[in-house]
Amino acid sequence: MNQQALASTWAFQPRRAETNHRFVVGLLGAGIGGSLTPGLHEAEGARLGLSYTYRIIDLDAIGEQADKSAALVQGAADLGYDGLNVTYPSKQLVQDGLDALSPDARILGAVNTITFHDGKAVGHNTDHTGFIGGFRAGLPSAAANSVVQIGAGGAGAAVAFGLLRAGTKHLVIADIEPARAENLAARLAPHFPDSEVSATRTDAVSGSIREADGLVNSTPIGMIGHPGVPVDIDLIHPGLWVADVIYRPLETQLIKAARGKGCAVLDGGRMVVGQAAAAFELFTGIPADADRMLATFRQAVS
Amino acid sequence: MNQQALASTWAFQPRRAETNHRFVVGLLGAGIGGSLTPGLHEAEGARLGLSYTYRIIDLDAIGEQADKSAALVQGAADLGYDGLNVTYPSKQLVQDGLDALSPDARILGAVNTITFHDGKAVGHNTDHTGFIGGFRAGLPSAAANSVVQIGAGGAGAAVAFGLLRAGTKHLVIADIEPARAENLAARLAPHFPDSEVSATRTDAVSGSIREADGLVNSTPIGMIGHPGVPVDIDLIHPGLWVADVIYRPLETQLIKAARGKGCAVLDGGRMVVGQAAAAFELFTGIPADADRMLATFRQAVS
Repeated sequence: MNQQALASTWAFQPRRAETNHRFVVGLLGAGIGGSLTPGLHEAEGARLGLSYTYRIIDLDAIGEQADKSAALVQGAADLGYDGLNVTYPSKQLVQDGLDALSPDARILGAVNTITFHDGKAVGHNTDHTGFIGGFRAGLPSAAANSVVQIGAGGAGAAVAFGLLRAGTKHLVIADIEPARAENLAARLAPHFPDSEVSATRTDAVSGSIREADGLVNSTPIGMIGHPGVPVDIDLIHPGLWVADVIYRPLETQLIKAARGKGCAVLDGGRMVVGQAAAAFELFTGIPADADRMLATFRQAVS
Repeated sequence: MNQQALASTWAFQPRRAETNHRFVVGLLGAGIGGSLTPGLHEAEGARLGLSYTYRIIDLDAIGEQADKSAALVQGAADLGYDGLNVTYPSKQLVQDGLDALSPDARILGAVNTITFHDGKAVGHNTDHTGFIGGFRAGLPSAAANSVVQIGAGGAGAAVAFGLLRAGTKHLVIADIEPARAENLAARLAPHFPDSEVSATRTDAVSGSIREADGLVNSTPIGMIGHPGVPVDIDLIHPGLWVADVIYRPLETQLIKAARGKGCAVLDGGRMVVGQAAAAFELFTGIPADADRMLATFRQAVS
């Protein structure tokens, strides 16, 4: 099934704007006590004049194992939550607590947003729309016909799916574990028959990068605690745009080096804000202002 | 253990006022879809400038049996609820989900309010303080040395405990099932050694009423769907105050008849508001204005 067919079979009806409703949502995951997401959501809710409460549900803090994830989803439904965001290690595990999955969450095998509307717990994925929304807003004139991405984990799956849905015709997925890249390519390719999706080792991407419009890092390399760059900086040429999914820090070594070479760059801020804005709209039925949320986010991380 | 000893061993520390905190609380019970409690609490929260959300957790609506009550309490703790009110049929069943019980909740064997503070789920009972607070506010000059109450169920237990804690020296508990009255009297009497607590059949209260300061109805007789009066109206004399725990309607046949005989009367509005105001303060650490809540309540039921 291609993306058009998917879209037509999944007519998600967003929650009608109910401005008198008091929204209660949360983030389920482990080690998330310091997450900036509650503040990001609550600030946007306040600016829209909503009663909007965003709770942290940290498996570590409540002393539960990851396998409790689905039960916590069911509890949130019973207790009148409007929705949940989901992060590591629960993005797969929550699926046992759901009544339905959106087609994109099913293809990605990962849920980052759950809505509880009309008695149904539905799993969504806004990571890929967050990436593409951020890409279009942050690099509005960039071509994305041919892209190389490094990293085939959870973030990499969202990036690849987002690029293919947005029309990338030649996507090279590289990973230091080539089997992981091959698995992701094989999983996505059938849904995008008009695109060419190939897999390779990270140390074999020089030719692909030379001919690409853009390069995306979707590995953890460059984040706080994981210094370094995911590819040899010498491969970066001025004709390339360079995007990074990392947002802590926003200015990774890769982004800094690419900017120094004259590349158009996109840091990870717009992706994290894009997925949050899309989740906010799924929860409330009310569009969020992603640019305003980005300003809130940049202020929080600075 | 008498009431003074209890009070000194149970130094409950109310939650410090955190006006930036977004409170999420709820009511757990069955068949509560039409409850006025959420509106009563949320209006008071709004007047105090709080972000305060009150959810209905209706076992019927979510398709759960009463024996799920304790699990729902645990879920509410995990999901960041600040507290719960509890009503039929869960007032006993929730106790398995608690870390501690207040002494009054333990004596009454019933929890109507749960707080989740500092990682501990603690059960309270504000029904008896609600009754006595309402009694003092609504009948400020009434003596309560000698009282007859009709009904030894859950509401009756709260009324009896409240009266004895407030200093009633002669309490007659009547019920159409005399064993129920005897059980309640036997359960409470040891905690109030300076008071005389006796039990009788409802059809044998004429002598006691003749000598009493006041009469309380704590049966369901007189509420919507249960028309009638709990005792023979001829027993009501002008020297008696008459209180009813029923609040739907506020003007029961008993209250109407007693008023017609010149008695001071207290309808059930102040008790329901009193327990709600006490729960609000347990949840938030911020005192509620019971008179203001009563005005909200009377407007809602009118």
